[in-house]
Amino acid sequence: MRAVVITEPGGPDVLQVQEVPPPTLKPDEVRVRVVATAVNRADLLQRQGNYAPPPGASPYPGLECSGTVVELGAEVAGWQVGDEVCALLSGGGYAEEVAVPVGQLLPVPAGVSLVDAAALPEVACTVWSMVFGEHAGRLQPGERLLVHGGSSGIGTMAIQLAKQRGATVLTTAGTPRKAKFCRELGADVAINYREEVFDEKVLAETGGSGVDVILDNMGASYLPRNLSCLAVGGRLIVLGLQGGVKGELNLGVLLAKRATVHAAGLRARPPQDKANVVAQTQANVWPLIEAGGVRPIIDRVLTLDDAAEAHELVESSEHIGKVLLRAEG
Amino acid sequence: MRAVVITEPGGPDVLQVQEVPPPTLKPDEVRVRVVATAVNRADLLQRQGNYAPPPGASPYPGLECSGTVVELGAEVAGWQVGDEVCALLSGGGYAEEVAVPVGQLLPVPAGVSLVDAAALPEVACTVWSMVFGEHAGRLQPGERLLVHGGSSGIGTMAIQLAKQRGATVLTTAGTPRKAKFCRELGADVAINYREEVFDEKVLAETGGSGVDVILDNMGASYLPRNLSCLAVGGRLIVLGLQGGVKGELNLGVLLAKRATVHAAGLRARPPQDKANVVAQTQANVWPLIEAGGVRPIIDRVLTLDDAAEAHELVESSEHIGKVLLRAEG
Repeated sequence: MRAVVITEPGGPDVLQVQEVPPPTLKPDEVRVRVVATAVNRADLLQRQGNYAPPPGASPYPGLECSGTVVELGAEVAGWQVGDEVCALLSGGGYAEEVAVPVGQLLPVPAGVSLVDAAALPEVACTVWSMVFGEHAGRLQPGERLLVHGGSSGIGTMAIQLAKQRGATVLTTAGTPRKAKFCRELGADVAINYREEVFDEKVLAETGGSGVDVILDNMGASYLPRNLSCLAVGGRLIVLGLQGGVKGELNLGVLLAKRATVHAAGLRARPPQDKANVVAQTQANVWPLIEAGGVRPIIDRVLTLDDAAEAHELVESSEHIGKVLLRAEG
Repeated sequence: MRAVVITEPGGPDVLQVQEVPPPTLKPDEVRVRVVATAVNRADLLQRQGNYAPPPGASPYPGLECSGTVVELGAEVAGWQVGDEVCALLSGGGYAEEVAVPVGQLLPVPAGVSLVDAAALPEVACTVWSMVFGEHAGRLQPGERLLVHGGSSGIGTMAIQLAKQRGATVLTTAGTPRKAKFCRELGADVAINYREEVFDEKVLAETGGSGVDVILDNMGASYLPRNLSCLAVGGRLIVLGLQGGVKGELNLGVLLAKRATVHAAGLRARPPQDKANVVAQTQANVWPLIEAGGVRPIIDRVLTLDDAAEAHELVESSEHIGKVLLRAEG
């Protein structure tokens, strides 16, 4: 089969489509013929050599896909050859075929095309588990959420889901175009972080109270400002470290606010944990998508042969929402 | 009535017993004639001028007491004049009388003397809510807990409760005598932090896995080492900042471990939150005390007139467990 291979650690041009052996199938896996995959920032880190796949994962990038089931492992029940699916992956989505643990399969939501469904698994599972999960953000109706990078794939999903669940949503974005898009998507407040000090603006917009949950992709560089605009009892949820790894934590502020800092990703979790997240996401997010309240936000659809161009685009941060790659040229 | 007054911010000798007006009673409060109170580290901070009582709280120190109900507010039900009680306070325990919101009253557990019951509310409510609480440590049977300062009032309660709940308990202590005491109390491992690097020892004792929950009173100075010996999915619970306020947080480690840092105290919480903590503590901890599996650990019992001496003792950290003050000379 064809797959996008990271020929060596480096820039986008190290990504090359090559003929590789198809994946082997474990008894609890299904083989999916990939229709589309999506680019995530983790793929960029993996390409640079800074994010090794977890043990047992495919060496090819790609943390999600959509496609058709073409083979069932011996222990698989509940799915049929020919089913149209999307899936959360530990890697290997940038390929014509991928082996998927059965707990990580999702049906394509009614009203979403098979290609577009590739935009959903990673952002829906991440936002559901991190913003709403009982051991993470546990955002409640009526609470306030601050989403950093509101125009990203994660950001666009977080804005929509939080609004559907009755929260007030504040967001940051880096250009007026992105801020406008976030507002159109439902954000109550969109802050251009290049023009305003976001924590001051958040405090001003919330009467000094701050926000109950922050979904953060910056890490160290935002840590003090995130803490300063967190409400009493607030939860700072860190998904990414684009602003650095080591930051100063003022534990006096954390204690006075009875606040929490939690950081996590999906990829390295054990299969059972992933299956739980996928099941909860299907139960809670899929109905909102099927009712039309939440939709995949897709910047553009390229092909596996365009993987380098897609990585350049995501690195430039000029996109809004997800960048997809079709497996068929 | 007599009360211990902080005559000005300063050392132990600013504590003086004076004649003061008795507390006024709100409709949802009971008046308790104090039999004993206990010294907490927060009292030392308050005496130094570094921990102002929350709005509406008594200006006198004392975050817990035992005694007898002598008057009921107009809205109080479920308690009678003459009931022997202990109570979680927002302040004012170092006095002959204190007004207590009814939600912060607890019965004296069977088998515990009325004096000794003054050692229970603060440590039991703190440990229950922070180590076992769903939005804090949520320690589960079979998990591992690291208790810093295992010979403190909080520490001795945490060791006992965690063992009763089926956890493995590791603890740090500053002298061989304290470490021995912790082991006798049930700790599986007691680390003398003056002789061993605690995080290395914790990792060695846990086969490199680390601990699921850490109960920390040091704050900044322990932050990197606490993170290094936290298990995947671990929860670092910070109650005190004896080692400083601002620490370096490695968010890369936090993310790789899918870990959580949470800091909180009881004193500043709204009354309804305190009432919830008290009710949960009574439901979960009191039966263990009455069955004999958990007991108050009391270093010595002094009197209100000895408040300065008691503060010196707690500042010296030479005590094990709680230091109580009887209200009657």
